[in-house]
Amino acid sequence: MPVLRHIGMLATCRFEGGQSAIHAARNAALAWEEDEILWAGPDTELPAQYQELRQVRDFEGCLVVPGLIDCHTHLAFGGWRADEFEQRLSGRSYQEIAKSGGGILRTITATAETSDIDLIARCRAALAEMAKLGVTTVEAKTGYGLTVEGEIRLLEIYKSLEESQPVAIVPTLLAAHACPPEFERNRIFYIESICRDMIPEAAGRGLASFCDVFLEQGAFIKDEVKLIFEAARWHGLGLKIHADQLSDTGGASLAASFGAASADHLDCISEGGIRALAASGTVAVSLPLASLYLGRTPMPARRLIQAGVPVAVATDFNPGTAPSFHLPLAMLLACTMQRMTPAEVLKGATIYAAKAIGEEDDVGSLEPGKRADFAVIEAPDVSHWLYHFALHRCLATYIGGEKLGA
Amino acid sequence: MPVLRHIGMLATCRFEGGQSAIHAARNAALAWEEDEILWAGPDTELPAQYQELRQVRDFEGCLVVPGLIDCHTHLAFGGWRADEFEQRLSGRSYQEIAKSGGGILRTITATAETSDIDLIARCRAALAEMAKLGVTTVEAKTGYGLTVEGEIRLLEIYKSLEESQPVAIVPTLLAAHACPPEFERNRIFYIESICRDMIPEAAGRGLASFCDVFLEQGAFIKDEVKLIFEAARWHGLGLKIHADQLSDTGGASLAASFGAASADHLDCISEGGIRALAASGTVAVSLPLASLYLGRTPMPARRLIQAGVPVAVATDFNPGTAPSFHLPLAMLLACTMQRMTPAEVLKGATIYAAKAIGEEDDVGSLEPGKRADFAVIEAPDVSHWLYHFALHRCLATYIGGEKLGA
Repeated sequence: MPVLRHIGMLATCRFEGGQSAIHAARNAALAWEEDEILWAGPDTELPAQYQELRQVRDFEGCLVVPGLIDCHTHLAFGGWRADEFEQRLSGRSYQEIAKSGGGILRTITATAETSDIDLIARCRAALAEMAKLGVTTVEAKTGYGLTVEGEIRLLEIYKSLEESQPVAIVPTLLAAHACPPEFERNRIFYIESICRDMIPEAAGRGLASFCDVFLEQGAFIKDEVKLIFEAARWHGLGLKIHADQLSDTGGASLAASFGAASADHLDCISEGGIRALAASGTVAVSLPLASLYLGRTPMPARRLIQAGVPVAVATDFNPGTAPSFHLPLAMLLACTMQRMTPAEVLKGATIYAAKAIGEEDDVGSLEPGKRADFAVIEAPDVSHWLYHFALHRCLATYIGGEKLGA
Repeated sequence: MPVLRHIGMLATCRFEGGQSAIHAARNAALAWEEDEILWAGPDTELPAQYQELRQVRDFEGCLVVPGLIDCHTHLAFGGWRADEFEQRLSGRSYQEIAKSGGGILRTITATAETSDIDLIARCRAALAEMAKLGVTTVEAKTGYGLTVEGEIRLLEIYKSLEESQPVAIVPTLLAAHACPPEFERNRIFYIESICRDMIPEAAGRGLASFCDVFLEQGAFIKDEVKLIFEAARWHGLGLKIHADQLSDTGGASLAASFGAASADHLDCISEGGIRALAASGTVAVSLPLASLYLGRTPMPARRLIQAGVPVAVATDFNPGTAPSFHLPLAMLLACTMQRMTPAEVLKGATIYAAKAIGEEDDVGSLEPGKRADFAVIEAPDVSHWLYHFALHRCLATYIGGEKLGA
């Protein structure tokens, strides 16, 4: 049973108190047993029975935060699309690039051409780097298969990763990422394949926790999303949606009406959408890296927070529009591009991110009974950590009470 | 005499051919002797006498670029201002913060209260981290002294750093960073102190290569800048200017009329200013981190490039408006926020950055006779490097032919 004492600042990030209440204590202590937190709070109040625990002395004066949660990634994919990045910067539109064989469909081909072993190795490498940044839980979407076999294959890869490396994986079926070209004239057959084949298998075998859809012009329309959501709900999957990213399609309101766990992107969300999310308690997941890479204005996070919507922050890691898994960079962008405060951003990458993936009872804050997932940051406080963007602010990452790399 | 062979991509970044011509070769070789490059080009053309050199085999297939040059930093300062970052995000204006004792003047106090040893240690730590990112030359400004003693002290610290660690330092006197409050009613006395005392001492003792000024409402006006520029030119210092950052003050045109080496920031540059820079050959230094942190629209780099202005990219590292020395992040922002291509950005952080500090004959490109400063990047090409923002893309940094940390 170890204990960290004389922590410079401990940000527990408990749920209550609104987005900016991170419940931080200076000169704090954190005690845990195996994978479970026993006690977190001011060192002066550390109960006597924990004062005799084995003391970890390496991190006195540092900042300790809950393990970061990246609640929106497209983790497993083959290939990259750096050439499209260059082409877009040179003025070529996404539509032109997609028409000439680029975009999501290109990654679907590259993923099919990559072996399971190589895909797993790529994911493991990314997860290991994410963990070095303090990330302890990662939501991971499919969506580069678009066939029953291709989508289930990606879910099985996530299951294999969950069992073979320390970062926790929350798997999401995103079969409705794009409509395969062969179904373009008979879209309902693809929707049916999702609802009758993919969702039942993913849910029945316990391979997915969530079902996600991409509601947007050129992706899926509202009526299609409703069919998929109804099937997913019937089979017990949680709901997520890529919504209102490039245009206001009423996605936020739809998510709210279905009681979705999260609505993600929302760069173009309407006032009505904001009110709907506030009423439903659906988490709004901000993805500022995607806005940056696409050269767009990000989700109006301040307006959502003022309306009482819980706002999470994630990377959207994918090979097209957000080719970075650097969650602390996404957090800096949430501060600078969206004027979220450091406290709001930290809560957005911990407890609100946990809520976005339905894990808020287990992770996302440092409280007795929760999993001992935390990151030790070389900074005096949260503002300093996010403000001074440097190479190595994360000194150690603990998952389930175990120090990584130790 | 070592040689790198079978380099995946070698971007030599020679001057000719415009901003997007990085003169890259695949399967390339680079040979050097002591601190000087002997040969750079396709491996198949490597002359026989270099084929027998001691071969460094660790980096086959990687990207090799000229050592990055950060041509605009405020390297030496005491304290930080993370609390002001938080206050600005919470809606407090820079002016309000400055009035209550924050801003540049707060850093001046903190710098005065920090010992030489501590300032040097802080700078050395930052330089060591910058070098890990591939940076081999850093321009470093004063401007947190604002007295003869305080400004000369910072220049002496830069001289000490130049002699005691490997990253090359190009020192710039920025006494005209802010007018000290005690001179506010007699500004001409401070200008005189700069022109009669600081510039002659800095130039006479060889402590500074450049003189920089901050032309902006609340900083210095055009007539004051002219007096300072004339004195600096008389004493043989190169000229730089912080111009057109928060408003169009005609700074670019003034820089051009004096033949300044660089005009920096330029977020609000006018069309006339762009034409003037194009005619004078003055380098425009883009500082997108400052624009990001301030929540402002950055320099219209595309328009400058189209007009033929050489555009460099730097960090502006300082404790207020750009608290990061992460030049690859600034380069990513130049792509995403300013729609510069990866090639334009790489040239902006190498050969055009070298021109901005008058070092283009010695560094900034990989050509025979130049200093063997280069970075080995784990990426197949330049686009991929900048597109996939990750933790450790720089595998090795060579300065003067020596591998750092070897």
